[in-house]
Amino acid sequence: MINIAIMGFGVVGSGVAETIRLNNEAFAKRMEGVTLNVKYILDLREFPDHPLGDRVVHEITPILEDRDVTIVVETMGGTVPAYDFSKKAILAGKSVVTSNKEVVAKHGAELQRLARENGVSYLFEASVGGGIPIIRPMWQCLASNQVESVTGILNGTCNYILTKMERDKEDFSTALKQAQELGYAEKNPAADVEGHDTCRKISILASLAYGKTVSNEDVLCEGITEIMYEDLLYARNNGYSVKLLGRAKKDAHDGKVYVLTAPHLVPETNALAGVNDVYNGISVVGNVVGDVLFCGRGAGSMPTASAVMADVLDVVRDCKKFIGWDEEKADFLGDVNKNVTASYIRTKASKQAVISAFGNVAVTEMAGYCMFMTEEMSDMDLAVKIKSLGEETVRIRIMK
Amino acid sequence: MINIAIMGFGVVGSGVAETIRLNNEAFAKRMEGVTLNVKYILDLREFPDHPLGDRVVHEITPILEDRDVTIVVETMGGTVPAYDFSKKAILAGKSVVTSNKEVVAKHGAELQRLARENGVSYLFEASVGGGIPIIRPMWQCLASNQVESVTGILNGTCNYILTKMERDKEDFSTALKQAQELGYAEKNPAADVEGHDTCRKISILASLAYGKTVSNEDVLCEGITEIMYEDLLYARNNGYSVKLLGRAKKDAHDGKVYVLTAPHLVPETNALAGVNDVYNGISVVGNVVGDVLFCGRGAGSMPTASAVMADVLDVVRDCKKFIGWDEEKADFLGDVNKNVTASYIRTKASKQAVISAFGNVAVTEMAGYCMFMTEEMSDMDLAVKIKSLGEETVRIRIMK
Repeated sequence: MINIAIMGFGVVGSGVAETIRLNNEAFAKRMEGVTLNVKYILDLREFPDHPLGDRVVHEITPILEDRDVTIVVETMGGTVPAYDFSKKAILAGKSVVTSNKEVVAKHGAELQRLARENGVSYLFEASVGGGIPIIRPMWQCLASNQVESVTGILNGTCNYILTKMERDKEDFSTALKQAQELGYAEKNPAADVEGHDTCRKISILASLAYGKTVSNEDVLCEGITEIMYEDLLYARNNGYSVKLLGRAKKDAHDGKVYVLTAPHLVPETNALAGVNDVYNGISVVGNVVGDVLFCGRGAGSMPTASAVMADVLDVVRDCKKFIGWDEEKADFLGDVNKNVTASYIRTKASKQAVISAFGNVAVTEMAGYCMFMTEEMSDMDLAVKIKSLGEETVRIRIMK
Repeated sequence: MINIAIMGFGVVGSGVAETIRLNNEAFAKRMEGVTLNVKYILDLREFPDHPLGDRVVHEITPILEDRDVTIVVETMGGTVPAYDFSKKAILAGKSVVTSNKEVVAKHGAELQRLARENGVSYLFEASVGGGIPIIRPMWQCLASNQVESVTGILNGTCNYILTKMERDKEDFSTALKQAQELGYAEKNPAADVEGHDTCRKISILASLAYGKTVSNEDVLCEGITEIMYEDLLYARNNGYSVKLLGRAKKDAHDGKVYVLTAPHLVPETNALAGVNDVYNGISVVGNVVGDVLFCGRGAGSMPTASAVMADVLDVVRDCKKFIGWDEEKADFLGDVNKNVTASYIRTKASKQAVISAFGNVAVTEMAGYCMFMTEEMSDMDLAVKIKSLGEETVRIRIMK
C-alpha cells in the first residue's frame, strides 16, 4: 500500500480522492497489487461529511514527519504556501505531484532540481491542459524532435466564452456571466479572461520545449475582454474562428524563440479552429514528426485529477525520472514586437481614415465600426498606423 | 555512446537513421552527453551510396553476438522473419523497438513477456498512429482511467483516398491510383483499403486498453472498396463525413468489449470528422478524463521514425518498463452483430421496395440508387431487411 497526502481539498484535490476511490481496483491490477491510500488531507477547512473527513489535518508537519507518506499531491493553487510546502515535502524525501501552474511557472525549475537532488520526482502533467496528456508526450514521445512551435488553446473558460458569444450572438459580459453561473469561470475572472492563465501555461510549455526558464512576466499577454460579437461574426464570414492562443515559435532564421499570449483569427482549415467550448487543444510541430494535435477537456475536477493520478502512478511504478528545464533564465527570447503578422482591425475611425492609413484595404462597416484585414507588417509599423487613426481601435492577430 | 542496430532499412528504418543524424546533438543534451551510434544495418540489400553503407550486414548473428549493441530497432514489416529476429534479440539481452504492427498484433504479448523476463524492453509506439504519441499516453497518462472506448482513423491511405474522392468528386479507383502515384498507397493496396491494417491497429489498442490479447482475426473487418463518391456526397449533404474507423467500446451494461473495423458516417460535430488527408486521429474516452483526441501524421518515414526514436530514447534513459497486455486470449469480446446502430443504405432496389422493407424513410435518389438512413437496429435485423431488397445494396454504419 502506498500512502499519499493531498494538500488542498478543493475541486482538483477532491477529484483525486474520488478517482482513487473509483479506480483503485483497476490501479492495483496494473501495479502488481499495490493500492493507494489517502492518509492525509491538508486543508484549513473541516470536511465532517466526507468519507475521508477523518484524514484532514491543518498543518503540514504530520505529513512531513510521517515516513510512510511517499507521495504528496499539491492541489492548492497559488504560490503561497504551495511553493513552500512543496519544497518542504521534497526536502523530506517525498515525491510531489502538482496541478498548480503558478508554482510550476514560477518555481518549477528549482523544485525539479531539488527533486533530482533528493532522489524523488516533481511531476506536473496536470498544470497544463487539464486531463490532456501533454507534458509527458512533449517530453518523452517528442524527445526525438526539435520543437519548431507550440500553439495552444490553453484556457477552457476563454474558449467557452468565445464559443458562446459566437453561437448565441452575445456580448462578452453576458457570456462571462453565464460561464460564472455554470462554474466555468471564477468570480474574479481576471486570471482567465486577461490571459494570465494562458500565459503561465505557454511559459511552462516553452520552458519544457526549449530547455530554460521562460518567465511568464517576459511574455506578452493580451486577453479577450475587448472582443465583441461582431469581431467573431466578421471572422466567421471570412473563414476564421477567434481563439485565445498561447504561442511559442522558434524562428528558423535568427534562432530566437517568440512567445506570446493573444487572441488570434485562426483559419477554419486549422484543426484548432474546431476546438470549441471548454475544450483545450495543443498543436506541437516537431522537426521529425511534423504536426501533432492533442485535444480534450482542459479543466474541471475529474479531467485534472486524471492527469494528477497519471503522475502519481508513474511515481508508484518507481520510474524515477526528471522532466523539466534549467533554472537559468531563457536567453533565447525574441522581441515579439518585431514579429511580422497580418491583423484584423476594428476601429471607430472613418473608412477614409482607414484607407489613408492602410491603403486600399477591403473595409466592412458594421455596428458603427470599420473592420478590415491588414497586410503582414511588424507590430511597430502597425502601432504607428493605428495611432494615426486617432480613434478607439482593436487589433487581433491573424494566424497563418 | 549507445550502439543500436536497425533491422530493415526501408522507409522507416532509413528515417530512423536520418533522425539520429539530424538530432543526435539535441539527444545528447537531454541524455547527459550520451550519443547514439548506428553500428549495424540488417538488410538483404547493399546501400553503397549511403553514408552508413559500411554498417550493412545480411545476417542477424553479428548483431546478436555483439554485446555493445543494446538496442535493436525492428522496422522490417511482416512477421517473417521479424518475429523470429525480435525474439532472438530479446533473448540475447537486447531491448527491441518496433514499428511493426503485424508482429505486435500477433506476437506482442509474448515478446512483451520475454522482454520482461530478460530485463529488457519491447516497445512499439510506432506500430499505431505513426508519429502520434498514443501507446504511451494511453498506457501512462490514462493509467488513472478505465477506458470506455477507443475510436480511431488509423490508416492514412484510406483517409487520403476518402478525402480525395470527396474533394475531387472521384471514384474509388481513380483516387487509389493517385494515392499509389504519390506513394501513399502500396502497389498491392489490399492491406490498407480492405481494412486489415486498421484492424490490426485497433486490435493492438483494444489489447492495451482492456489487458488481454484481442486477435485481429476475431475482429469484424470491412474496408472502403465499395464506397462511391455519391455516398460521400449524400453523407456531406446530411451533415456527415465518411471515415474508416477502428472502434473498441466497453458496454456499460454487459461489460463486454465490442471491437470492429468499418467505414462510418461520422457527424461533422465530431472532431474525427475534421481529420482529413493522410492524417490519423484517435479518440480515447476514459471514465475520469472524459474524451481526449490525438491527431497527426499516421504514416510516412519521418513521423514513424519519430515514434521509434521516442522508444529508443526511453530505453536509453533506462526507464525500464513494461507496456503491454496478457498473452491470454481476450474473453471479454461481445458479438458486434448484436450491436444496435443506425445505418446509411445505398441500394439498386426501388423506392417502393425500400419503403416496404424499412417503412417510411426519407429516400434520396441519385445515380440510379436509392439512399436513406435507417433507424437503430441490430446487424441481424438489418441483414434480414437488406436481403428482402434483393438487389445490390451497400451499408455504412452511422456513428452517434
